[in-house]
Amino acid sequence: MDRRSIIKHAGVAGVLAAGAAPAIVSAQPAVRWRLASSFPRALDTIYGAAEVFAKTVSDSTGGRFQVSVHPGGELMPAFGVVDGVQAGTVECAHTAPYYFFGKDDTFAMGTAIPFGLNSRQLTAWYYDGNGLKLFREFYDAYNIVNFPMGNTGAQMGGWYRKEIKSPADLQGLKFRVGGFAGKVMSKLGSVPQMIPGGEIYQALERGTIDAVEWVGPYDDEKLGFQRVAQNYYYPGWWEGGAQLDLYVNKAAYNALSPEYKTIVTAAASHAHTVMQSMYDVRNPQALKRLVAGGTKVLPFPRSVMDAAFNASQELYKELNDTNPRWKKIFDDYSAFRRDANLWFRFTEARFDSYMQAARL
Amino acid sequence: MDRRSIIKHAGVAGVLAAGAAPAIVSAQPAVRWRLASSFPRALDTIYGAAEVFAKTVSDSTGGRFQVSVHPGGELMPAFGVVDGVQAGTVECAHTAPYYFFGKDDTFAMGTAIPFGLNSRQLTAWYYDGNGLKLFREFYDAYNIVNFPMGNTGAQMGGWYRKEIKSPADLQGLKFRVGGFAGKVMSKLGSVPQMIPGGEIYQALERGTIDAVEWVGPYDDEKLGFQRVAQNYYYPGWWEGGAQLDLYVNKAAYNALSPEYKTIVTAAASHAHTVMQSMYDVRNPQALKRLVAGGTKVLPFPRSVMDAAFNASQELYKELNDTNPRWKKIFDDYSAFRRDANLWFRFTEARFDSYMQAARL
Repeated sequence: MDRRSIIKHAGVAGVLAAGAAPAIVSAQPAVRWRLASSFPRALDTIYGAAEVFAKTVSDSTGGRFQVSVHPGGELMPAFGVVDGVQAGTVECAHTAPYYFFGKDDTFAMGTAIPFGLNSRQLTAWYYDGNGLKLFREFYDAYNIVNFPMGNTGAQMGGWYRKEIKSPADLQGLKFRVGGFAGKVMSKLGSVPQMIPGGEIYQALERGTIDAVEWVGPYDDEKLGFQRVAQNYYYPGWWEGGAQLDLYVNKAAYNALSPEYKTIVTAAASHAHTVMQSMYDVRNPQALKRLVAGGTKVLPFPRSVMDAAFNASQELYKELNDTNPRWKKIFDDYSAFRRDANLWFRFTEARFDSYMQAARL
Repeated sequence: MDRRSIIKHAGVAGVLAAGAAPAIVSAQPAVRWRLASSFPRALDTIYGAAEVFAKTVSDSTGGRFQVSVHPGGELMPAFGVVDGVQAGTVECAHTAPYYFFGKDDTFAMGTAIPFGLNSRQLTAWYYDGNGLKLFREFYDAYNIVNFPMGNTGAQMGGWYRKEIKSPADLQGLKFRVGGFAGKVMSKLGSVPQMIPGGEIYQALERGTIDAVEWVGPYDDEKLGFQRVAQNYYYPGWWEGGAQLDLYVNKAAYNALSPEYKTIVTAAASHAHTVMQSMYDVRNPQALKRLVAGGTKVLPFPRSVMDAAFNASQELYKELNDTNPRWKKIFDDYSAFRRDANLWFRFTEARFDSYMQAARL
């Protein structure tokens, strides 16, 4: 029996009886959290980020701080997790903030907004810019303390039964699209639909929608969209880098020891990095399989991009004029976006474009 | 006096005397590590990543696991840290692996090789591809367990007294360049120089070198190169995403509890993310200041890029033919690079290029 087993089985008296040195200087309490994911278990990248987080927390604490991860619908509806965390029904959730733009459009900036930041830029804005600070203030009204926890990278523009040759082809299009982007789609004449990940395929198969965007090759292939629509467009201009967040109930977070608070922070960062990595490793392979299977990979025409860009600017002006919570964060976000793109266009872009054209 | 203070001051007997519940189920031992950085304290981004790591480890453990961070030269020379970790003189180091290509060219792939992976791709290869696994095997001979801990992003191509208009202008150029890239520079006729970060400015000022590359706007501005050379080229084709690593002495790592091992892993991931974020936030501001101060920002001509690309391919062929350790990792690295660039050229590149040209 090793020393830890003795401690575990015999308690302090047993340790003393066994003659163990008094190295025990600090006890961390047992903590049990439930994490409600908005995603089905089958999406191993997104759902997997929550599992990476839970395992890291548990392993950092010798199992004394346990987080059980539950797929969307198990504890509460996939889109009910903000209410669940706010009310303290669960201690935490893993979700895409933009699902909750119906509560306040400001949520959208926490994941992705049309023509927003890319993955690295959004991460930078959170970790070394003002992003995390501003969102912590915003979420306070929802009893939420948030942590970036995963990004998908730039998403694809989705699967379309018919080709999109001009903005006119978006008229009347019944389109499953994640959250806030639907507002821009509406301005372009489309009919946006909010459907959780686990239910999209069925809707597309039934024909209740004409087009669907989800994430990118790896997830999309798994959900099987390629069996129903052949035209796969890029880029997903409404999700240039879609971030997931860990939402922690404020009281649950504040009840943690300083050690556990740091462990939660670092575990979320670890999961953040792992999730983007999973997409970056797995998307290329899935793309190759999809193309081999007959999927047509097509760029949105410039006219569609420009129409969408202009509609987005119109929306942002409306929100700046009507929602002070939005405006406060968007002012900082958009200034960062301008500077980040100024810089990225030099060495990052030129290196990448050279590599993408090279014979490797 | 709170419960922790009692425990700290009175030991186990005191806890029992005070009637504390036997909640103490696992003791984590006190650990003190020294971390030798290869960088001067003034480089707050790179040096700062080691400090973020140390603070995260300490805060995760209530100060029981302390890592003291020492700038290059304090405990050992900046380029002596591999020897230091290998011999166990220090428990860990934070460095750029490519500094050590003199020991084995394979080290270079751990940071950046000419026309290699960009920041996100390299991170992905480590975290969800085979990168970490392959490098752990490689470093075993050096008693090192490594962790990715920071990336600068694509670096700039450096500061040149004279403009570079064709490959002919590289002939005879005395060029301070980080590590392994010097091999390609030599093939192009330049005379590469290895000089640690803290000593470069002096060399450029003295005129012992004609050109210098270091990192990018934020660090370069701080080292003052703009006062000595005006032509600032991009991209740094030899550093499309330069990774720093935490090197931990194998015996020191193996002596850690499972909890501490996980805490080290997560803290390194956290520092990895924070460091890239610091660069992405601070480089744009520095670039604007440099340009306002008269720096000319220029792209390398295509002819220079192509000459460098061809020389790099020649070098990789030589290394594949002569160094089995290199070949084993490069085979995996280059297959990943091909697929990653295939994927990134679609939605990532098109989203980014649209944003970089947009009126934001």
